[in-house]
Amino acid sequence: MISVGIIGGSGYTGKKLLQFCANHPYINDYKVYGNKTAGQNLTQIFPDLVDQINDSQIASAENISADHDVYFVALPHGEALNIIPALFHAGKNIIDLGGDFRLDSKDEYEKWYKIEHHYESLLSEKVYGLADYHTTDYTNKTFVANPGCYPTATLLSILPLAENFGGEILSVSTIAYSGTSGAGKTPKQELLMSEMDGNVAAYKINNHRHQPEILQTLNKHGFNAPFSFTTHLLPVAVGIYATTSVHLKSPVRENELKDIYESVYHSSSFVRLRDVPPNLNWVVNTNYCDINLSVKDNVLIITSAIDNLIKGASGQAFQNMNKLYGWDESLGLKNQGVKNVSVY
Amino acid sequence: MISVGIIGGSGYTGKKLLQFCANHPYINDYKVYGNKTAGQNLTQIFPDLVDQINDSQIASAENISADHDVYFVALPHGEALNIIPALFHAGKNIIDLGGDFRLDSKDEYEKWYKIEHHYESLLSEKVYGLADYHTTDYTNKTFVANPGCYPTATLLSILPLAENFGGEILSVSTIAYSGTSGAGKTPKQELLMSEMDGNVAAYKINNHRHQPEILQTLNKHGFNAPFSFTTHLLPVAVGIYATTSVHLKSPVRENELKDIYESVYHSSSFVRLRDVPPNLNWVVNTNYCDINLSVKDNVLIITSAIDNLIKGASGQAFQNMNKLYGWDESLGLKNQGVKNVSVY
Amino acid sequence: MISVGIIGGSGYTGKKLLQFCANHPYINDYKVYGNKTAGQNLTQIFPDLVDQINDSQIASAENISADHDVYFVALPHGEALNIIPALFHAGKNIIDLGGDFRLDSKDEYEKWYKIEHHYESLLSEKVYGLADYHTTDYTNKTFVANPGCYPTATLLSILPLAENFGGEILSVSTIAYSGTSGAGKTPKQELLMSEMDGNVAAYKINNHRHQPEILQTLNKHGFNAPFSFTTHLLPVAVGIYATTSVHLKSPVRENELKDIYESVYHSSSFVRLRDVPPNLNWVVNTNYCDINLSVKDNVLIITSAIDNLIKGASGQAFQNMNKLYGWDESLGLKNQGVKNVSVY
Amino acid sequence: MISVGIIGGSGYTGKKLLQFCANHPYINDYKVYGNKTAGQNLTQIFPDLVDQINDSQIASAENISADHDVYFVALPHGEALNIIPALFHAGKNIIDLGGDFRLDSKDEYEKWYKIEHHYESLLSEKVYGLADYHTTDYTNKTFVANPGCYPTATLLSILPLAENFGGEILSVSTIAYSGTSGAGKTPKQELLMSEMDGNVAAYKINNHRHQPEILQTLNKHGFNAPFSFTTHLLPVAVGIYATTSVHLKSPVRENELKDIYESVYHSSSFVRLRDVPPNLNWVVNTNYCDINLSVKDNVLIITSAIDNLIKGASGQAFQNMNKLYGWDESLGLKNQGVKNVSVY
Repeated sequence: MISVGIIGGSGYTGKKLLQFCANHPYINDYKVYGNKTAGQNLTQIFPDLVDQINDSQIASAENISADHDVYFVALPHGEALNIIPALFHAGKNIIDLGGDFRLDSKDEYEKWYKIEHHYESLLSEKVYGLADYHTTDYTNKTFVANPGCYPTATLLSILPLAENFGGEILSVSTIAYSGTSGAGKTPKQELLMSEMDGNVAAYKINNHRHQPEILQTLNKHGFNAPFSFTTHLLPVAVGIYATTSVHLKSPVRENELKDIYESVYHSSSFVRLRDVPPNLNWVVNTNYCDINLSVKDNVLIITSAIDNLIKGASGQAFQNMNKLYGWDESLGLKNQGVKNVSVY
Repeated sequence: MISVGIIGGSGYTGKKLLQFCANHPYINDYKVYGNKTAGQNLTQIFPDLVDQINDSQIASAENISADHDVYFVALPHGEALNIIPALFHAGKNIIDLGGDFRLDSKDEYEKWYKIEHHYESLLSEKVYGLADYHTTDYTNKTFVANPGCYPTATLLSILPLAENFGGEILSVSTIAYSGTSGAGKTPKQELLMSEMDGNVAAYKINNHRHQPEILQTLNKHGFNAPFSFTTHLLPVAVGIYATTSVHLKSPVRENELKDIYESVYHSSSFVRLRDVPPNLNWVVNTNYCDINLSVKDNVLIITSAIDNLIKGASGQAFQNMNKLYGWDESLGLKNQGVKNVSVY
Repeated sequence: MISVGIIGGSGYTGKKLLQFCANHPYINDYKVYGNKTAGQNLTQIFPDLVDQINDSQIASAENISADHDVYFVALPHGEALNIIPALFHAGKNIIDLGGDFRLDSKDEYEKWYKIEHHYESLLSEKVYGLADYHTTDYTNKTFVANPGCYPTATLLSILPLAENFGGEILSVSTIAYSGTSGAGKTPKQELLMSEMDGNVAAYKINNHRHQPEILQTLNKHGFNAPFSFTTHLLPVAVGIYATTSVHLKSPVRENELKDIYESVYHSSSFVRLRDVPPNLNWVVNTNYCDINLSVKDNVLIITSAIDNLIKGASGQAFQNMNKLYGWDESLGLKNQGVKNVSVY
Repeated sequence: MISVGIIGGSGYTGKKLLQFCANHPYINDYKVYGNKTAGQNLTQIFPDLVDQINDSQIASAENISADHDVYFVALPHGEALNIIPALFHAGKNIIDLGGDFRLDSKDEYEKWYKIEHHYESLLSEKVYGLADYHTTDYTNKTFVANPGCYPTATLLSILPLAENFGGEILSVSTIAYSGTSGAGKTPKQELLMSEMDGNVAAYKINNHRHQPEILQTLNKHGFNAPFSFTTHLLPVAVGIYATTSVHLKSPVRENELKDIYESVYHSSSFVRLRDVPPNLNWVVNTNYCDINLSVKDNVLIITSAIDNLIKGASGQAFQNMNKLYGWDESLGLKNQGVKNVSVY
């Protein structure tokens, strides 16, 4: 049984972390640390969690106990930089849900995040925790940089292709749509129901911080084709739908491709390969990533869907914790299991 | 041809006022005055109006020209108090879309709005502009207090009953639902798409400022039965749906009731009496109020639907302007008119 | 460990029953019986349940095994009449999610459902399973008529008042809004996204079958005041929000009222009394019913919110099963429980 | 003044045609012909149009008057084949909103639509009415094949590029999202609010009939690069958002590109070039197509937004009618015009 500290737990991802804590069989206790919300009770901030979690006061993030076993850090970028190094050197298990340690290069980080990074050495200590990917290696790791929501949906779509058909790719274009919860809980006019009802808009075109994060991992797996990545807001609260259009230099057989994806994800508990394009609501409120491949001549269309707050954040974070501890990766993240079907 | 000044035109109602100005045949020019938005161009604030209005800079509300013929005032409550008296005494036509002059009693205003009211004499100079109601009298008036959105939907539902069956009423309960645009454009957490998607919530129970506004007018028409009024947020941007449950002391004949409503609204251009409960989307983007009456034994259910920004604000404001000038009340508010149907 | 038969499991409530079966610790196996869907696999109909349930073929409802311990019947009204009597006489535990046995009177049933009822004797054998209400008595019962969705939200709101203040009530008006899933999965034009997006509409005014169901239970608890009940469709898939306006003959103290509700629901696992009006999304995907009371002078407004498919159907059905067996009523319906909060 | 016949006017596009008829200054009368709906009144089918159109009975499509001047044909594909040839040979003006005559090749039509085409000669008589494109030529034409909704949004995005930089294009991928109204009014389970609320799904991947329609026009303008086109359903009723990712062989200057688009659309009344990605709700309920170009290195992202029922169907159809008659293309499709801005 372990003790969990959640640092920055009053946002949308923090809420999910709380719910997963309440359900995890090996978590004995959990405590939330915050800045502006310190002193409030958890159920003041999350009234729907009354009776679902043990209520308690949010403690100050300036005074984080050293007695937890694992720390989930869900802070705006830049803020984790001041907190994680000490936890790391104290030998704690850390899962950082923010962007401060996802990129390997200090320069890239500073270019995209406009913040100085004084902990360059830690960048190589982390594992980039794309939990469902077969090559992600947690050996001797205590520090996980939890992937961004868009990168999770996009990388799980493209990586098996990049690894196996890298040389055949002419170009890749990912067009992704996200629910508004991905933009956080801070009120902004463009995120109001009055603005987003019935609305759609592309944003940060050619300028989204998740693009270098995606490319960094793709490149490690042999990808070097032209790539574009474009993000949009959907008029819904939750979910990411990513559609990747791949132009190939020569036709590929759909079955061959599907076999590769099946072998890559054979041991994943949460990637479901689909015969038809997934519906977004198949994955909302779950830790699944549903993927479909559709090939015609030289064109491959990959659709993938996730819950941005679960698979794209807190669910994957718990999966990463399970992996750090060597537990079943689905602990606390799935229904209690499949029953026998009646044979009568 | 007239000149229009719009004071406080950068919110949701201001936008509709602009669109109506652009379409009105007798409006020669219009100018917007603002506080925080002064200096910006209209199409910076309303990018969708590019090519639909003549763009211009928003002028400072501290320097309002005296050369307009009519002034639409769309300010937060309290702010109109400082602006309207001078316009009134200068003999201008004024339509106030806010709540500062709707109540007749200074005391009631101060109780509900928590603001001192130094212009008590003006309270009796205004006409409460429920434009579709047959007894609303604009004779010798230059100053219109434009009704609130909920009062418009509610009063048009109940007034004919109150006038004609007042003594038969045991109790009245109005339960109204509004789209989020009624709460304005200022970002608040509870109005985010992330919070309101798939959500509904009652608010200000037994404590909404529109309740005394409704009762004031009902009482003038002979109503003195127990009344309750409860407001909710819908997960949509636009529209109000008000359902009024009336318990009667004795059964009433549905036809008799419908005849009365028909005679009351016979000359209204914008009340459509319906044989079935209206759909909200029948009235969205229009100045109509659709009303249905359904009687069984001693129970009368009245449903009514409006666009909160048009019939509940800017559309009724224009209708009121048309009435002040003695023009056709539907000028600029309806399609260009009904054509002949082919007789072939 | 028990075996479960689900008869009519391909609709929205059937899906929830499947998910609850997969999570319930004492259910060993489950099997679905259908008519039109017989022969199809469960995950063809519910693709999102891949990996969440054990897939199997839907069996024919014409050939229901007698070897299950408990039967959930989720059929259109009229159809359960032909199936339940045999199961009842075979001594099986039955939870009927439809309307065929909710009313106590054969005449009332035939008047409202327009179907002949040949099993009058069974009407008095059932328990009307309002699971959270303190007087619902399962002693010696094997057959539960699971309450309708609207009645669940409405009765939990009003019953404590009726029991304790029945004589003080002048009138009661319940205005309820439901997501479209309450209307089922059969395609109808008025239920299309294209019609319901941004829309609201009242329906079956003074003519909804849930009205006699509500009144039957209210009357048993001493209620005899004027009552109205009006239903609406919301532009969302899931949830019911019921607002009840009570006019009282004399003022009531809010605290006194709240004390009564607290004592009535003290032992309920799923009624959460709230200090503020609930948000619908607090209860969606849960078996909770959240209730708020707000009193001013002679007016009491009660708001209540449920998930129509869970608390209003399948969740309450499972709660009823748990009660028939004498298990903890929340088994399989709640998170695994509240953990210790860290004391560090 | 002209007389209009609308054949197949009871769907979503038919409704918009009716509204445009009611507003057009040169339309004297209009009549709707239907199959299943013949005999019903227009306002039975479109209750919200009460008072907005002159009501009349829908006539039988088997008995179409020859006395109209222009015919809008809004039938399911295949059905227009039986109606248009006679009208064409009678010298009538025809705008076909369906797909039967959009493709130039009988073989392509039969391959994609699985219907025999017996009027091959008419295929070359039509003008493919992409009304906003500068090369669309109506000289001596009486028959317009109105473009599909997706092709309108896509072609207006890409054509100027194809014409001017065709040789520089490495690949093009268009990912388009549509509201559900594009799928029509016939009830289907997957289009229910209960299914689409909060949902997104790709469909007809690599298999949408609009793909050959797009390619046919692109190819005529010199395009021969790899192209993919993928369609999705949005959880809204109305609108199309198309995002096109272009990989270029060498970098292009954004300004140079924007100049070309500006010159191409200089004389269009309805293409608005934008400095930022458009919001879908900027164009809903209008005939505009809003387009943004964003370049970084070798990647060009083009976003475009339209109302699928107006610019993507009935609005463009009216624009095409205006062009056939040599009238201002915006007649009946825009607000009454831009007023003077007050100079005070």
